[in-house]
Amino acid sequence: MAQQRHDEYSGFRGSGVRLTEPLLPSMESHKSDLELPRLYAIHLFDKAHATMLTEEKLIPVADGVAILRALREMEQEGAENVRLAVGGGMHSGEQYLIRKLSEAIGGRVHLGRSSGDLGKVSTYIYIRDHLLQVLQALNHFQGVLIEFAQRHLETVMPGYTHGQHAQPTTLGHQILAWVRTLERDFDRLFLAFQHANCSPAGAAILTGSDFPLNRARVAEFLGFHAVERNTLDAILSYDVFFETLSALSIIYMNLARWSEDLMLWSTSEFGLVEIPDRFCGTSSIMPQKKNVYLTQWIKGAAANAVGGLMTAMLVDKAPTGLPILEHQYSRSAMTDSFNNLLRDLELMADMVPDLKVNKDLMEERAGAYWAQATDVAGMLVREKGLPWRTAHQVVGILVHLSYSRNIRPREVTPELLDEASLTYTGQPAGISAEQLRAALDPVASVARRTLYGGPGPTEVRARMAEYEAAHRHNVQATEQALAKVRSGLAELERAMDALIAAAPPAA
Amino acid sequence: MAQQRHDEYSGFRGSGVRLTEPLLPSMESHKSDLELPRLYAIHLFDKAHATMLTEEKLIPVADGVAILRALREMEQEGAENVRLAVGGGMHSGEQYLIRKLSEAIGGRVHLGRSSGDLGKVSTYIYIRDHLLQVLQALNHFQGVLIEFAQRHLETVMPGYTHGQHAQPTTLGHQILAWVRTLERDFDRLFLAFQHANCSPAGAAILTGSDFPLNRARVAEFLGFHAVERNTLDAILSYDVFFETLSALSIIYMNLARWSEDLMLWSTSEFGLVEIPDRFCGTSSIMPQKKNVYLTQWIKGAAANAVGGLMTAMLVDKAPTGLPILEHQYSRSAMTDSFNNLLRDLELMADMVPDLKVNKDLMEERAGAYWAQATDVAGMLVREKGLPWRTAHQVVGILVHLSYSRNIRPREVTPELLDEASLTYTGQPAGISAEQLRAALDPVASVARRTLYGGPGPTEVRARMAEYEAAHRHNVQATEQALAKVRSGLAELERAMDALIAAAPPAA
Amino acid sequence: MAQQRHDEYSGFRGSGVRLTEPLLPSMESHKSDLELPRLYAIHLFDKAHATMLTEEKLIPVADGVAILRALREMEQEGAENVRLAVGGGMHSGEQYLIRKLSEAIGGRVHLGRSSGDLGKVSTYIYIRDHLLQVLQALNHFQGVLIEFAQRHLETVMPGYTHGQHAQPTTLGHQILAWVRTLERDFDRLFLAFQHANCSPAGAAILTGSDFPLNRARVAEFLGFHAVERNTLDAILSYDVFFETLSALSIIYMNLARWSEDLMLWSTSEFGLVEIPDRFCGTSSIMPQKKNVYLTQWIKGAAANAVGGLMTAMLVDKAPTGLPILEHQYSRSAMTDSFNNLLRDLELMADMVPDLKVNKDLMEERAGAYWAQATDVAGMLVREKGLPWRTAHQVVGILVHLSYSRNIRPREVTPELLDEASLTYTGQPAGISAEQLRAALDPVASVARRTLYGGPGPTEVRARMAEYEAAHRHNVQATEQALAKVRSGLAELERAMDALIAAAPPAA
Amino acid sequence: MAQQRHDEYSGFRGSGVRLTEPLLPSMESHKSDLELPRLYAIHLFDKAHATMLTEEKLIPVADGVAILRALREMEQEGAENVRLAVGGGMHSGEQYLIRKLSEAIGGRVHLGRSSGDLGKVSTYIYIRDHLLQVLQALNHFQGVLIEFAQRHLETVMPGYTHGQHAQPTTLGHQILAWVRTLERDFDRLFLAFQHANCSPAGAAILTGSDFPLNRARVAEFLGFHAVERNTLDAILSYDVFFETLSALSIIYMNLARWSEDLMLWSTSEFGLVEIPDRFCGTSSIMPQKKNVYLTQWIKGAAANAVGGLMTAMLVDKAPTGLPILEHQYSRSAMTDSFNNLLRDLELMADMVPDLKVNKDLMEERAGAYWAQATDVAGMLVREKGLPWRTAHQVVGILVHLSYSRNIRPREVTPELLDEASLTYTGQPAGISAEQLRAALDPVASVARRTLYGGPGPTEVRARMAEYEAAHRHNVQATEQALAKVRSGLAELERAMDALIAAAPPAA
Repeated sequence: MAQQRHDEYSGFRGSGVRLTEPLLPSMESHKSDLELPRLYAIHLFDKAHATMLTEEKLIPVADGVAILRALREMEQEGAENVRLAVGGGMHSGEQYLIRKLSEAIGGRVHLGRSSGDLGKVSTYIYIRDHLLQVLQALNHFQGVLIEFAQRHLETVMPGYTHGQHAQPTTLGHQILAWVRTLERDFDRLFLAFQHANCSPAGAAILTGSDFPLNRARVAEFLGFHAVERNTLDAILSYDVFFETLSALSIIYMNLARWSEDLMLWSTSEFGLVEIPDRFCGTSSIMPQKKNVYLTQWIKGAAANAVGGLMTAMLVDKAPTGLPILEHQYSRSAMTDSFNNLLRDLELMADMVPDLKVNKDLMEERAGAYWAQATDVAGMLVREKGLPWRTAHQVVGILVHLSYSRNIRPREVTPELLDEASLTYTGQPAGISAEQLRAALDPVASVARRTLYGGPGPTEVRARMAEYEAAHRHNVQATEQALAKVRSGLAELERAMDALIAAAPPAA
Repeated sequence: MAQQRHDEYSGFRGSGVRLTEPLLPSMESHKSDLELPRLYAIHLFDKAHATMLTEEKLIPVADGVAILRALREMEQEGAENVRLAVGGGMHSGEQYLIRKLSEAIGGRVHLGRSSGDLGKVSTYIYIRDHLLQVLQALNHFQGVLIEFAQRHLETVMPGYTHGQHAQPTTLGHQILAWVRTLERDFDRLFLAFQHANCSPAGAAILTGSDFPLNRARVAEFLGFHAVERNTLDAILSYDVFFETLSALSIIYMNLARWSEDLMLWSTSEFGLVEIPDRFCGTSSIMPQKKNVYLTQWIKGAAANAVGGLMTAMLVDKAPTGLPILEHQYSRSAMTDSFNNLLRDLELMADMVPDLKVNKDLMEERAGAYWAQATDVAGMLVREKGLPWRTAHQVVGILVHLSYSRNIRPREVTPELLDEASLTYTGQPAGISAEQLRAALDPVASVARRTLYGGPGPTEVRARMAEYEAAHRHNVQATEQALAKVRSGLAELERAMDALIAAAPPAA
Repeated sequence: MAQQRHDEYSGFRGSGVRLTEPLLPSMESHKSDLELPRLYAIHLFDKAHATMLTEEKLIPVADGVAILRALREMEQEGAENVRLAVGGGMHSGEQYLIRKLSEAIGGRVHLGRSSGDLGKVSTYIYIRDHLLQVLQALNHFQGVLIEFAQRHLETVMPGYTHGQHAQPTTLGHQILAWVRTLERDFDRLFLAFQHANCSPAGAAILTGSDFPLNRARVAEFLGFHAVERNTLDAILSYDVFFETLSALSIIYMNLARWSEDLMLWSTSEFGLVEIPDRFCGTSSIMPQKKNVYLTQWIKGAAANAVGGLMTAMLVDKAPTGLPILEHQYSRSAMTDSFNNLLRDLELMADMVPDLKVNKDLMEERAGAYWAQATDVAGMLVREKGLPWRTAHQVVGILVHLSYSRNIRPREVTPELLDEASLTYTGQPAGISAEQLRAALDPVASVARRTLYGGPGPTEVRARMAEYEAAHRHNVQATEQALAKVRSGLAELERAMDALIAAAPPAA
Repeated sequence: MAQQRHDEYSGFRGSGVRLTEPLLPSMESHKSDLELPRLYAIHLFDKAHATMLTEEKLIPVADGVAILRALREMEQEGAENVRLAVGGGMHSGEQYLIRKLSEAIGGRVHLGRSSGDLGKVSTYIYIRDHLLQVLQALNHFQGVLIEFAQRHLETVMPGYTHGQHAQPTTLGHQILAWVRTLERDFDRLFLAFQHANCSPAGAAILTGSDFPLNRARVAEFLGFHAVERNTLDAILSYDVFFETLSALSIIYMNLARWSEDLMLWSTSEFGLVEIPDRFCGTSSIMPQKKNVYLTQWIKGAAANAVGGLMTAMLVDKAPTGLPILEHQYSRSAMTDSFNNLLRDLELMADMVPDLKVNKDLMEERAGAYWAQATDVAGMLVREKGLPWRTAHQVVGILVHLSYSRNIRPREVTPELLDEASLTYTGQPAGISAEQLRAALDPVASVARRTLYGGPGPTEVRARMAEYEAAHRHNVQATEQALAKVRSGLAELERAMDALIAAAPPAA
């Protein structure tokens, strides 16, 4: 077999070299398009690797410069489009270079590299970049939530557990719980970012190369903060995939939970909030329908993220390095989850501030279904020195009486409380109407909850600085990380400029 | 607000009707393309529903015929393409008809229907059709395996458990285990087919319609074997999604397991089989590499199928009918799994007959690592009347001696067996060299296993009729099911012809 | 090494036989107790195998009879307790027999058997028996639901989709959707039963035995309906585990969905049903709380079943026969799911008939949030010949007007409808107050839905015979299956009696 | 209803208070034993809460001291046993105190607390403590691996990808990849620890209390490093459950992968390592079997951990605070995963150093299947200036020739290389026998890989300080975290001592 003609070059897996049959065409569908989201990162790696090879004189400088010039030319036409047109997937750079410059020159670009590090480097760049985008979107959403919460520090509403009215709280406090949860999401996503932002480049497939590649230089060019210390681990460990998919799944589960809250609160029966129409659809048969689309899609996409995590874990349950191609399914799961999440974080940040909040109904409901019962028991402890458990049981009987006699909480009298107390303790409670009224008022109930972290408006105001400081810290950490990545990429362009400038002009 | 102009009609969710804002454009990406695989089924349902409405005179006959003619015209240009061009997803039929015929006519097609039954009907048609395809592909693959097995009824090889040599068997017997497993896969997939091939049409969103739709007629037109008995269950139960995804996951797990077998057997160390080059790739760095692509992709796609099942179960964990849009992620998981599986069943059926089987090495290995030990113990029971456990322990000591003294199984002498026996029982074993040789011969070992279902070639030959009968039965069941579906679809065309023929020609 | 003393016999894995070190004690915790749920099945297999060996004279008849007598003696003390006391897990039978009868006799019981078939046979018996129990519990629950539904065929309530009011329906129709769904659950569970009720006994570990075991006789004794045709598949395929766990997960997902319905309906805001107190708890702090425990536990147990399915699939992703011990995690998942499901089916069947149904509120709500809008549009089609889409849009505008002007559905006048109609069509609707009232009445709306499968009470009454017939069919199928199993077990006792009777009395 | 008699007190859910029926006994099985692993933490919380209530004079000091004395008395009998005996699960403390001291005193202990914070506090203490144990076990295992790797820096063996021989590497380098992976596991587990080690105490169920609880003091007593900032998030967010289960699943997936490596390497065909007998079993039928138990159990337990993660995510897919009891399944999954992992990390650390490594075979195999092919191509680049791709293709042809002519790598001659080169380039390669031999020597191949992170022994020795520093850092971080926890617990005992000492002696 002779070499392929340069202008028809279609890769190194020709029949007649190592293998005797061409790859079955129907197999190709298994990999179609799956590398597209990472092509930009492969282009970057091609540039960084070629620049390093040239700087280190591991390939003839003239050939190196020709390669760098050609890679720059690709960019003028749009590197990803050129690569899709030329084919070859991860090897589209080499394929383009050989077709354009001949194998004698273009065939030098892959020195010391493998499909293994092409795949891992581009995936880590992809993960790193998209985690940074997620962190930015998270920070933005969190900022929006902080503002929204501040508008609702006194919006009293029922808090629920087991699906039942539990205690009165405020919408602001509830939203700040979201804010606090997002702090932990930030930590998880940022740790995954740190793990992914470590360069596998130069690790080839598992042992690196016997050419003296400058791994630190390539890592710098690619914006990585460090070089992976073990070439086998660098390529054949996939725990960072799991970690990324876990962190994405967890934040998505949180978004899904809050979407469930909004859906429940916006039922006709709850009626506490209304979602703006632009996030809703209607029905082709039921003209009255206002269906909340966004929350449903978020819930579905969260389920999909978790399914993707399961896929990835199943894929990699095997001896080290045995599954290789399978990982395209893990990468595909990541692409889906990143794309969905970035869109949904933005949509949520757009939607929340425009929620129509039914404040009056919220407050009325906060007092309508005995969410204040805990306060009545607490009042008995404070005013009458009852042990907690005794007070709790007395109020349990009171509530039972009120339901069985159809008496609403605000209609309860000291006499009814006495009746309940007599049943349990043999003594009347001896509480005044005013004491009872104060205990039964949901607004007062919330106002009394001023212990650290509670929903009492004065307490929440005291905590705002902590929420804001945490948010500010994360915004800065994200910006610094981003700046560091960009500075590496800029150094790559500078190094390319320098090599090209030092070379004689292209023929 | 006035009606939309017919030629610009873009659906019933205009702002100014039920809702005041248009749907946010960035929301649209959530649903892009996800209905494409089911558009053909939606077209079919449009035809069946319109035909029934016309037959039953629920819409003016002239309007009905105009609709039927227009739907036929769509087909001339390719119904799916026309629908993609006109937009509207599931409602592309109505959108096309209103634009073409005006709302006064085209606006009649959706009478008594909802997005709910559009979605469920088209999904059930999609599942039904693709399950039938899977059953056909399964039957074909099973037939190929039966033939392949027959070529290897005497190809003796090691059987493994815990990753260790267990007992000698044959390749044919091993492949027939695949055949038998596929029989159960057939049952599961066929049951899912039967559950999906039951018509939800006419159930609208949960209560059907107060127009007297003829559900039985539509079911017949769509090739369904029956009409769902409860309109709520028909639309808002998703267990058939789970069942389908489970059945697909289980057969895929089986294919993945057999792919793992082939990968293990084709390592350099095992060397028992070689996969044809057309299913393999090589490496961009390691020129010696022959990497088996197909088996890896099958394993990855199996993992993806299981992840999809998990997604679907997460999606639907909610009160009845609350998740609706979320199910697009379940449908998307089904589409992926069907597409992957249909391709991979075909590829496996193409690959297995061309496996290069290293018969000599298989047979040598079957005797090289003490897989015959059970036979030596059995021989002691038969010849010397030892209790099984005693014989088993004696041979355990024999094997230990052989490993510690580096004696290969075929080199073992009656004296060594005596030494082992003395250690355990205090008595020599008293076995002749000939008896020992017969026990140690893996080919003889296999030949002795003639109990029902065992690998002895005479026994396997006796069982072939049962494998073939089961296969034949399933081929026939598939063909009958297919014929029934096709006969319904033909009746639809006949009914349309009749209505059109009876009407005055179009203006 | 000498034989272990009989009275201290603790199994065949002594150090000094095949292996040189005892098993690390801390490893033991990995398997503690995990075989307990299947010990009764192992006992059964010991009896069946020993009876067959004796009948076939594969062991000396006197030894066989001694073994059978000893196994019967175990039963007098409680076979499972004796086995737990003697240790040895799956091999507790042999361990007991050797200690009691010496290795010379008890050491014969395992002839032709392996841990492999001990494990698979006992697991299939366990699955088979527990699936039959599940089928019985399902049938019972379904019967309860049919009765309950009949009490509520005219209990009008809102139907929901996307969490919003969709259309009026009845509680009876909704419950019959559960009944119909359970029919498909029955099919899936019954198919799994059929697959599990096929005997692996005699397949040893993968090749059966070179002793002429009578597999058909053992299968009969164990109540299996057939003998597995391939000894490798019989032991080393685990798809029936997946199938069982899938079928259990799917029915559990259904129960969980209905539990979600009940939790939602029993919120204070919905208030449609109340769960009896015996299924509820209260709070240690909030004395008003009535928390529905049962529905939460069902939801949690359903999640656990799905997690168990995932575990089982991960466990078995490997070459054939390589994972063996791992499957204890699959079996453990099955045990959990069976135990939970059997309890929860019974609890649900106990709870549903005692639900306190708030009929008046249900009916009021069915008309309070425009669930009747579809009927108004339908009325416009019927009365005025409007195309469906036109009528639908007119009513969309009507609903919007009613919400923005705070007019409740029952207060809507023909004039308001005219206003809506004018906006869209330029014409008034021209509907009378009586026509409008009829369209807006939720009870009438339901009554009009008499197409096949709809919620109209006359239609549902017409369908009851079909629900009952399907139920009766399944009850019979379950009873027949159970009778067949019992008849096999009875034959085993008869055969044991015969052998013992024919033997000389024990010394 | 009167109060329960103190000595029969069995909790606050009596019928006749809030509810009218006792809890159905068969429901109880749903929760049996599930709190046991956290009882010690509940005891701790009881002590810390009572101490704070007393210090803050929120309950009468004399009552507080009586309670503290009684809690200390429980410890003398074993707090967990006393609690199990007294019943009441999470409320066993109150139950014990009321029975012993009467409701008048014991009924005061729960002031300001809910089942919600009992559950969350005890779970966070449990997670925190067990994560610290896991970190210690991880550190120990990592230390063992570092030592083991140092013994094998020159143990040359094949590296594998796609299941095929890829390139020569060393066992030491491979083991150091494990060490590096564990560094990321440490980060993930430590972040989960930090998130769990933040006090929910005092958050009650979602709003805290209107009694001025000193949350900071309780947090200090319990060894938490901070107080959760939002009482709703503190109780009703479960992302730390997901995070913990994810981190446990990921490290378990790593252990499972390495177990798969060891199982593959210890097959008869690979034969590279042998696992010590104490981690192995044998077969009841096949006397030759040495089945590696440990690796199988680890793989199964890893699958179980992932299934548990799936369970937990399914459990919590719901509106905030709606699922409560369901979380016992998440907690149960954590308990299983912690128990399994702690045991398996220890077993792995025990097993690895005793692996019998077949060094000679490893080295022979490293050269037997063309793992050196990359080096031959690299040599052509270095010696002859060929472009990489040209050299790669020439060697691809060489390998093909060697396989088709049955020539082993070490037998390849310069002439054969020339033949391959001529085919592709039209030129002979012109390489000397010595050059070829050096390229083909696997030991030399490894030695040449001295780029950063590569397996060349000189390079690996240079990296050891980095591995050791990372290990040391983590050991210290773990010890500091542990010391901080212990110091809090000690402060609790001091505070209790002080209160008791200041009080008059008990009657």
